[in-house]
Formats: sequence, C-alpha cells, structure tokens
Amino acid sequence: MPPSSNFFSIIAGVGAGTGHSVALKFASTYPVVLLARNPANYEPTIKAITSSGGQAIGISTDVSDPSSISNAFEEIKKQYGSKKLAAAVYNVGGKFVRKPFLELSLEDYEAGYESNGKGFYLFAQKALPLLLDSVADSPHPPSLIVTGATASIRGGALMSSFASGKFALRATTQSLAREFGPKGVHIAHAIIDGVIDIPRTKEWQANGGVEDGKIKADAIADAYWYLHTQHRSHFTQELDVRPYVEKF
Amino acid sequence: MPPSSNFFSIIAGVGAGTGHSVALKFASTYPVVLLARNPANYEPTIKAITSSGGQAIGISTDVSDPSSISNAFEEIKKQYGSKKLAAAVYNVGGKFVRKPFLELSLEDYEAGYESNGKGFYLFAQKALPLLLDSVADSPHPPSLIVTGATASIRGGALMSSFASGKFALRATTQSLAREFGPKGVHIAHAIIDGVIDIPRTKEWQANGGVEDGKIKADAIADAYWYLHTQHRSHFTQELDVRPYVEKF
Amino acid sequence: MPPSSNFFSIIAGVGAGTGHSVALKFASTYPVVLLARNPANYEPTIKAITSSGGQAIGISTDVSDPSSISNAFEEIKKQYGSKKLAAAVYNVGGKFVRKPFLELSLEDYEAGYESNGKGFYLFAQKALPLLLDSVADSPHPPSLIVTGATASIRGGALMSSFASGKFALRATTQSLAREFGPKGVHIAHAIIDGVIDIPRTKEWQANGGVEDGKIKADAIADAYWYLHTQHRSHFTQELDVRPYVEKF
Amino acid sequence: MPPSSNFFSIIAGVGAGTGHSVALKFASTYPVVLLARNPANYEPTIKAITSSGGQAIGISTDVSDPSSISNAFEEIKKQYGSKKLAAAVYNVGGKFVRKPFLELSLEDYEAGYESNGKGFYLFAQKALPLLLDSVADSPHPPSLIVTGATASIRGGALMSSFASGKFALRATTQSLAREFGPKGVHIAHAIIDGVIDIPRTKEWQANGGVEDGKIKADAIADAYWYLHTQHRSHFTQELDVRPYVEKF
Repeated sequence: MPPSSNFFSIIAGVGAGTGHSVALKFASTYPVVLLARNPANYEPTIKAITSSGGQAIGISTDVSDPSSISNAFEEIKKQYGSKKLAAAVYNVGGKFVRKPFLELSLEDYEAGYESNGKGFYLFAQKALPLLLDSVADSPHPPSLIVTGATASIRGGALMSSFASGKFALRATTQSLAREFGPKGVHIAHAIIDGVIDIPRTKEWQANGGVEDGKIKADAIADAYWYLHTQHRSHFTQELDVRPYVEKF
Repeated sequence: MPPSSNFFSIIAGVGAGTGHSVALKFASTYPVVLLARNPANYEPTIKAITSSGGQAIGISTDVSDPSSISNAFEEIKKQYGSKKLAAAVYNVGGKFVRKPFLELSLEDYEAGYESNGKGFYLFAQKALPLLLDSVADSPHPPSLIVTGATASIRGGALMSSFASGKFALRATTQSLAREFGPKGVHIAHAIIDGVIDIPRTKEWQANGGVEDGKIKADAIADAYWYLHTQHRSHFTQELDVRPYVEKF
Repeated sequence: MPPSSNFFSIIAGVGAGTGHSVALKFASTYPVVLLARNPANYEPTIKAITSSGGQAIGISTDVSDPSSISNAFEEIKKQYGSKKLAAAVYNVGGKFVRKPFLELSLEDYEAGYESNGKGFYLFAQKALPLLLDSVADSPHPPSLIVTGATASIRGGALMSSFASGKFALRATTQSLAREFGPKGVHIAHAIIDGVIDIPRTKEWQANGGVEDGKIKADAIADAYWYLHTQHRSHFTQELDVRPYVEKF
Repeated sequence: MPPSSNFFSIIAGVGAGTGHSVALKFASTYPVVLLARNPANYEPTIKAITSSGGQAIGISTDVSDPSSISNAFEEIKKQYGSKKLAAAVYNVGGKFVRKPFLELSLEDYEAGYESNGKGFYLFAQKALPLLLDSVADSPHPPSLIVTGATASIRGGALMSSFASGKFALRATTQSLAREFGPKGVHIAHAIIDGVIDIPRTKEWQANGGVEDGKIKADAIADAYWYLHTQHRSHFTQELDVRPYVEKF
C-alpha cells in the first residue's frame, strides 16, 4: 500500500524519540499528520518522511486545550477530508515532575493529568468518530495506540504527578477498549518500561551503560505497527516493553 | 481513650453511608471533623455523635476548591489547634457519570478526576503535615485512609470518567505510601467492590436481593478502624472488600 | 466466648513465628488444633495456650501426604467431633529454595508446589466440608485464611520454586473464594511482604536494622483475627502487609 | 533465511490449533522439532511443513515425564546437533479439568500443574542451555515463548486445577525473564483470552457466534513470531490477546 493511500494516520506527540520513529514507520503505508506543541518538534520528522517519498503534515497543537485540538481536527479535515483514518497514536509525554509530595504545587500535580487524562480525552473524542468510520474498509482494524510507562501500573515515591496521569490514561484506555473493541476499533496500551535511546538521553547511564540498555525508538515503532496490523480475531490490549537488562 | 483526647480525626466526604459510619466509629476515640459540601450531609452525623457523648464539628467544604480546602483547615486549626491529627479519611464520592464515551462532555469526563485526583491532592497537602507532626506520640500510627472502588483497578465500558479518577487516586495513594510510610504515616487504600447498604440504595436489587448482598457501612468503618490501629511493623497498603455473594 | 466453645479452629503450619501467634490469638476464643510435621514445632505453642487457660492439641502431620492429612482429620474428628470448625488457617511455609534455575533439581523446583499447591489442596479438601457445616451457626463466617508472600504476585529471579508454589496457592484461593464465598465461607489471602520478627531472623538486618523493620507475628495474628470476624456483607479477599519501611 | 538455516526451533505441544500454526510460521525460517504425546498430533503438521519446502521432525514426548523429555532432547541432539536453537515455544495444554472443588480428585487438581508447572520446568531445563548457547549469533535474540490463558491471572470458580497450573507457569516465566533476560534470552508470556478457532471448537458459539469471535491460530503464530523478532533493546515480557468482541 503506497502512501497515496485512501487512509491516513495521526501521531500526537512527536519529538526526537518514539513519536518520530512511529511516524516514519506509519508513513511507509499512510500519510501522517503530526501533532506537537512546537513546530520545531515535528519539522525534522516531516523532512525525513518527505525526503523518503512519504507524505506528512504537521499541526502545532496543545492537546490539553480544547480549542487547539478542535482547530487541529478542522485542519485535518481540510487536508485529508477525502481520506479515512486508519490509525491514531497518542504519545504525549507532557511535563514530567518528580518531587516530594509536599513540594508539589497544584500545577505540578496536575501536569500528569493535563496531558495524559484531559489531553487524551480531547484527542480521543475527535479521533474515535473517524476511526469508527473506517471500520468497514480499513486495511487493518482502525487503531488507537497509547504510550504508557512504568508509572502506568506503579505509583512510585515522588511520582504522584506522573503516575496519576498515566494511571488515568490507562483507565480510560481500558474503558475505550471495552466500549469500542466490539465495534471493531483496536485500542492498545503499551507500557514502556525503560529509558528510550534518543539524543536527550545519550549521556544517561541506563542499566550501567551496557549496549542496548536503552529502548530503541524504532523498536517501539515496530511494536505499534505490529499492534496496528493485528487481525480483529486477536487484539492485544496491553503489552510491556523493556530492555533485556532492565530490572523489573 | 475518651473523646477528650489530645488527638482528633478528619473525615472528608460524609453523607448517609460510609462517611457517617466511619465518623461514628472514629468518634468513639477521637473528636472528629466532618467535611462535606452541604451541611445537610454532616448534620445528622454530628447529632448522632454528640448525642452519644462524642465530639464533632462540621465544615462545609468543596474539596476540589483550593480556597475552600484552605478555609477548612484554617477553621480546623482554630477549633483543634491544641490537638494533633491521628487519622484522616478521604471518602469523597464526587459526581458519578456513566455514559458512552462520545456522549461525555469534558466536564463529565473530568468529574472523576476533580474529586479523586485534584480533591485528594488538595486534602493530602493539608493533612499530611499534621499527620507527620503526630508520628512521635499518636496512639496508633497516624493514618490517611482512602476509599477506592472496583473502578480503581478496572476501567469498564462507559466508566472512563469514574475510573480515570479512581485510578489517579490509587496512583497517588501508592506514591504517598512509598514516600510517607517510612516516615511513620500509614497510607491505606480500600477497594470497595459492591453496593453499600444505605437508604439511597434500599431499592437496588444487588446480588439478586439476597440478605447481606450489600456492604454494611458499619463494616467498612470497622475495616478503617482496623487499618488505623495496625502497628507500624505491619501496614496494610491495600485491601478489597465485597459482599460474600458478589461476582468478581 | 470462652475456649469451651462449641467451635474450634485449625492452624496448619505452626512454628516459632506466624503460626504460633495466630494459634494463641484464636485460642482465646476457640480450642485449636495445631498441625506441624514435627511435634517440637507445636509443643511450645500448646504449652503457651494451656498455661493461659486455653485448649490446644497438636497432630504431627505432613500436609503434602494424603494419608497423613487423612489421619490428622480422623484424629480431629475423634477429639473434636462434637464441635464445629469456625476457622482454618493455612500457614505452611514448606521448603524454601532460592537458586539459579539451571541448578534447581526437579525436587527443588517442586518443593514450592508440594506445600503450597498439593498441600493446600489436601488441607482444603478436608477443611471445607467442616467449614460449610458451620455456616448456619458459626459466631463469625467460617473462614479459611491463607498465608501468601511477595512471591505470590511476583516471580523474582532465582525464585521459581517458591513463586510457582505461592502463585498456585493464590490461584486456588481465588477459585475457592469465588466458589465458596457465596456459600458463606470466607476465603482470604494475605500477602506477607517482609521479614517476620522471630528468633530465627533475629540477626537479619531487614530494612537496615531499624526498629520495627520486621513484621511482628502478633500483628499478623491480629490481621487474621480481623479477617475472621468480618461480616459476610463485607469479606476481604486479599490484603497485603509490610513493615512501614519496606521497599515495594 | 532459508530453512536450511544453522538454527532450529522447538514447539512443545502441537495439535490442531496454536501449535500447528506456530510450527508453520517458524518453519518458514527454521527447521522445527515438534513435541507431542501422540504422533497423530504432529504428523499433519510435519506433512504441511515439508510439502511447502520446510523441514520438520516430530518426537513423541510426554513433557511431564523426565525420562521422556530427556529422550526427546537426546534425539534432538542427534538430529540437529550441528544447529543452534533459536526459539522454543511451550504450548502444552494438558488435561483441562473444570469441576466443583470438592469433586476434584488429587489427580484432577494436579493435572494443571503437571503440564504447566512440572512439564515446563522439565522443558525449560533442557531448552535454556541451548538458547544461552545461541545468544552470540542467533539472528534474533533466542526466545522461549509460553502460552498462558485467562486462568493465568484469574482463578475462577471451578478452575482451581487449571488456574493453579497456569499461575505456576506464569510465576516461573517471570522468574526466568528476570534471570535470563539479562543474559540475552527473551522469555515471553502470552495470555490467550478467548476460544481458539480450530476444528474442535467449530460448534462452540463463542461471543454469540459472531464472525471472528474466536482467535485465529495463525494470528497467535504471528504474535509469537513478532515476539521472537523483537530486538533485545525492547523485549515484551507479557501481552494479552483476545477477540475484538470478547468480554474482559
């Protein structure tokens, strides 16, 4: 299936890591729409996609802001209104705050929920009707794939901001899987347990600095593509991923 | 220990059910402060406590509103400034919304988080310093006990609002247990899995209407008291409770 | 209720720690039957109980041996045939093997299952009919309370023997809770997460050797008694317990 | 990579369903060894593989019998001693018993553990040294992939035999993942939650008989192949799979 497909995909949360790799992966089959707050985050990805013959557009979006999300989907409709949505990936990191609880401001605490609770609600409200509309003829079951973390299943000390957001995201994802799975939309949640190997983490000595001790973003992209291509007789709702040397 | 104790307790979320029974239970040992949005919710409880020789005050509070919570703790300081806080119970139900996801307004979706995420953050910010201050001499390890639900560990279809709030609450509770447990404060989370036997649910045919098919609020009060009185060599972080006939 | 009760209790797995404390606790209400492989394990407990006015008998039993278990229950029938069984506690440790997997003999690997899988099956087969027979008139719902461990929910490296047994025990306990709960028998599983403070562990520097860094066996006894006395409107199926300073 | 590879694979538990599909999938890359108690179970699979140009041998094996497993691996050494083991799949169903607990014989109860506890121990003892020996040059990280079920994480009423075995299997798998992952061997556990679409289940009305309401065995084979090909920077330890219409 060439990128001149009748279908397209959306990746929310694109930067130097997972989002970039996922976008490149999906771009080999579908045109992709990239959402990030800052154009500087998606521009290198657009360049990489178009230079290899793919199609991509970027829309500057704050996923936690209802009007910004509305504008983004209006723009998507203008640009890709003749195509159907095959896959949407929610990979928004948001602001990460790690602090003793009594030093957390309300804004700090809510940062986790802003991007992983509210932001996901806003995104899913817009993406799900489009995914439902693709069930009949999408090459693979239309998919909503969500990036979780260790903090999705464990509330560590100093982690109440991030963990409360990631737990809320997982709760919502489970609810959607139970509601929309039977309608043919695949809702999947990936628990990313480890440091991702990107420029920003280059100096981090994850797992003692051993080779492959960080997660390759391309490997996450493969996982998301595998999830997207699962037949509806066989949906994975949740999987974990971690480097072979990760303690867990 | 008579209610004229040097210690007191706070129950946030008092109405006709769990909060009422918990307040009565703790009132046999400590004076209690009752927080509820509406005085009509705590007045019967105050009456029941005082008529049996206990002490209780009520403060009209919206736990999701920072200034309301601040005012409540100012008032607590005025009234009980000479006492120390032995136990705080967070039993806030909040607005329960059960709807297909695409019919949920943002306000609907956020209702779960408002009371169980943000509200708990605000309450815990005020209660934890007081609990820490009691570690040295409290008759039992100072305790923060939190009411969860089935939706704390399972995101059902149509349940994304409530489940995202209850998951966020559980995440925060786990984080606090790991941070404040070693400082001597007992943080416990109870998963209430079933219908509570209160006037409002009288007509509900839970578990086929069999005898004791609903949870007695007094039994939850016993559980919370048991949690409060656990020695620090042996803290329960989480327990579930359900009627003997409940499917799970 | 004096120990000359119409009811009795059984504690399987009695030594210097949890079993001893649990037996003493239950002995203040019911006569107790103590099962242990070696009389030296239960004799001090019998002495402690009888010297404080309680009643106890010990039966030398290998819980993993069908004929030994049968003999034990025959003996129980002879001695307490006129009484009904109010509570049974399965607290069998069994042989603990911690080794690299490729150094585990089949016997090593099966040690976990022998005591926590097979042994519990054999015990429950005999205890459940007696517990069912008590539902109508037992002072508290007849209870089968089971001792789990961290390894009940986490298979650590080098822990496959113990973890496979403890996972199997938890699986069986859940199955029994779902089958026998609705019949009025309370099946509860306690996850003991930490070192127990007994003579054998005296020199262990659990949690840096801080005060109360090990679990008091008496506190576990209190927990089991609390579980036993829960009303059937409100059964706890699972709770965890750990020292306030335990990492988890 | 043609089937004349320097590597081979082993599938334990081959019949009309998952094992057959998994064997065909892996046979397109590696010669496969099929283990089943009865040659009638693996002969159709061998025929299917060889007729499409692959290589396969079958060895009649009772995985719960130490000498039978030893013989099988002796035979494997004779036949494929010059090749290295790239992947081993443990897909042994064993005897499934669903009965009220008090009607379970000891043999019934132990049936779950026999194949999923003891059998897996025996298989893993033989397979792991071969997998370790392949770490340096296997085309993908050498893999041990294990078939779980809903009963791996939930002990249902009447399910204590199967659930105790599947819980024990999961415990062992987690232990091995933590021990052998850091050595480069990928240990993965798949929770198969639903009815598999095979001749034996043809008449079963899973999920109301809707199209694709049962899991395609080929889809499980794809999942196992995906797991096998994951890079070591990114191992999935556990994933679930279920039909889009499955209640969970």
